[in-house]
Amino acid sequence: MDEAAVIERFFRHLGAVRTDVVLGVGDDAALLRPQPGFDLALTTDSLVENVHFLPGSPPRSLGHRALAVNLSDLAAMGATPAWALLSLTLPHADGDWLGEFAIGLGRLAREQGVALVGGNLSSGPLNVTVQIAGQVPANTALRRSGARQTDEVWVSGTLGDAARGRMAASGEPAASSAADDVHSSWLRARFEYPTPRVALGEALRGVASACIDLSDGLLADLPRLAAASGCGAVLEVDRLPLSEALAAAAGEQAWQGALLGGEDYELCFTAPATAAPALAAIGARCGVGLTRCGWLLPSGGLELRRAGAVIQFSHSPFGHFAP
Amino acid sequence: MDEAAVIERFFRHLGAVRTDVVLGVGDDAALLRPQPGFDLALTTDSLVENVHFLPGSPPRSLGHRALAVNLSDLAAMGATPAWALLSLTLPHADGDWLGEFAIGLGRLAREQGVALVGGNLSSGPLNVTVQIAGQVPANTALRRSGARQTDEVWVSGTLGDAARGRMAASGEPAASSAADDVHSSWLRARFEYPTPRVALGEALRGVASACIDLSDGLLADLPRLAAASGCGAVLEVDRLPLSEALAAAAGEQAWQGALLGGEDYELCFTAPATAAPALAAIGARCGVGLTRCGWLLPSGGLELRRAGAVIQFSHSPFGHFAP
Repeated sequence: MDEAAVIERFFRHLGAVRTDVVLGVGDDAALLRPQPGFDLALTTDSLVENVHFLPGSPPRSLGHRALAVNLSDLAAMGATPAWALLSLTLPHADGDWLGEFAIGLGRLAREQGVALVGGNLSSGPLNVTVQIAGQVPANTALRRSGARQTDEVWVSGTLGDAARGRMAASGEPAASSAADDVHSSWLRARFEYPTPRVALGEALRGVASACIDLSDGLLADLPRLAAASGCGAVLEVDRLPLSEALAAAAGEQAWQGALLGGEDYELCFTAPATAAPALAAIGARCGVGLTRCGWLLPSGGLELRRAGAVIQFSHSPFGHFAP
Repeated sequence: MDEAAVIERFFRHLGAVRTDVVLGVGDDAALLRPQPGFDLALTTDSLVENVHFLPGSPPRSLGHRALAVNLSDLAAMGATPAWALLSLTLPHADGDWLGEFAIGLGRLAREQGVALVGGNLSSGPLNVTVQIAGQVPANTALRRSGARQTDEVWVSGTLGDAARGRMAASGEPAASSAADDVHSSWLRARFEYPTPRVALGEALRGVASACIDLSDGLLADLPRLAAASGCGAVLEVDRLPLSEALAAAAGEQAWQGALLGGEDYELCFTAPATAAPALAAIGARCGVGLTRCGWLLPSGGLELRRAGAVIQFSHSPFGHFAP
């Protein structure tokens, strides 16, 4: 198969059918019709072999994750996803691999109403880069910088599952006993098929004051939101939402996993205390638990508290160019 | 340097300053304000080490080319470039390399009024992917599919220079004698710093019936335009525009270089014969030669003629997944 055949067979009609796609895959560029009165939200994210995933990772999961990580960025802005491009660099055109990859990407795209409108295919070391465009009513997007120093800190879902699931996916035992296989599978699915919180992000417009998605772990990402807002933050680690599976697998260390573990693609956001009832309703409507687990401070970094007392916690965050 | 430091130092404020950038680099997504009544043109293209360039290629050229190949796609649609994202995967964060890369990308971005509004930085094998968004008045974009079977075929600039320049860049002698060093340098610059024909593309709206950019060579790209328009095509190889440098370097083979050589990023377009005076004026205004070198047919593939006679010409086109 040459490039044209690969595109024709696997990618030409992937994702949702949208009436605002004037011209999709097959020309020098795609043509889209933006919705009047909306701002465009643009972002891109890559999955690189041996960095974001191991050789031999399931291609269906890669297709899903490559889109999910971008959808999660749009969710953090409160934007509604619309159009995606795929830049796929791969060593050879393996039909089985491509078919599975396209299923993973295509299913999530259809679920979220995203049309794949173009892209690029090249030979080379495996690298999956998706670019996504979404729309958000002008002046309503959620930013990292909107939090006020009296706001409370919330997170969606449960934290730390994906990092533990990644262990399972790479062959390390994620759970402690054979009876915990079901937990292990669930954790692995949290890593391989993360759920971007798109509907939640949309619902948070006008309610949350700031928002960020949790790709690098709460301990790395919350300080980014706080710093962008010119604030410090307190996190009560006892309150971090833990899944039953993570609690069973990690025991006493579960809270550390929730703090450090990346790739959950949950949202972390801030809101004034008065928003709590509205947030409870939003969580129920979106089918995702929302947990209040801290608050902002006028200044400073991130302060961790456990059982009411300030704790010290040292860690080495992941970095792409660590020495 | 970690990722945040690299972004801050090299990429945060790269390219043009635009008032339609609501929020640039630094949040989960960029926010842009589309112009009412315009369609959005979206495309992406990648440069992969050992595929699109050799190890040790000048990073300034890579930065330029990574953006230029995308600008060329927008030019082929008649769209005006606006916002770009950069997904950069590189083995290590070398400040000298990044500085040169940013100069190459930044200069061209400013020249063309493009703001770099976001992106992604990762460790891994060198891969430069740019995504670009442009705008074009609704229903005026140039497509590959608009040609009519009586139209003439035109190309901009001169062809085959970049492929010959690539030889010079990779250490092969591109010219036949030391006296031809100036030709060799010029050809190399055509490869390393291609000029995307953005202003020409905009000027061709309403005049050209179809358009494609020449990334894979005229022999590969013209049949794509013709096929998309449901036509065949005749190309008079004697009429192909050759630079003095290519003619000096390639002698009798120059026309073959013009036919086969990729990466020129000139435009190939079609127009009715009545458009010739308008095209002459457009070429003069845009400062680029426009050459009529063929015509369309009601059907069939690509027919080559030389000195009025049909010729046979066999070739092996470049393919990313050739067996």
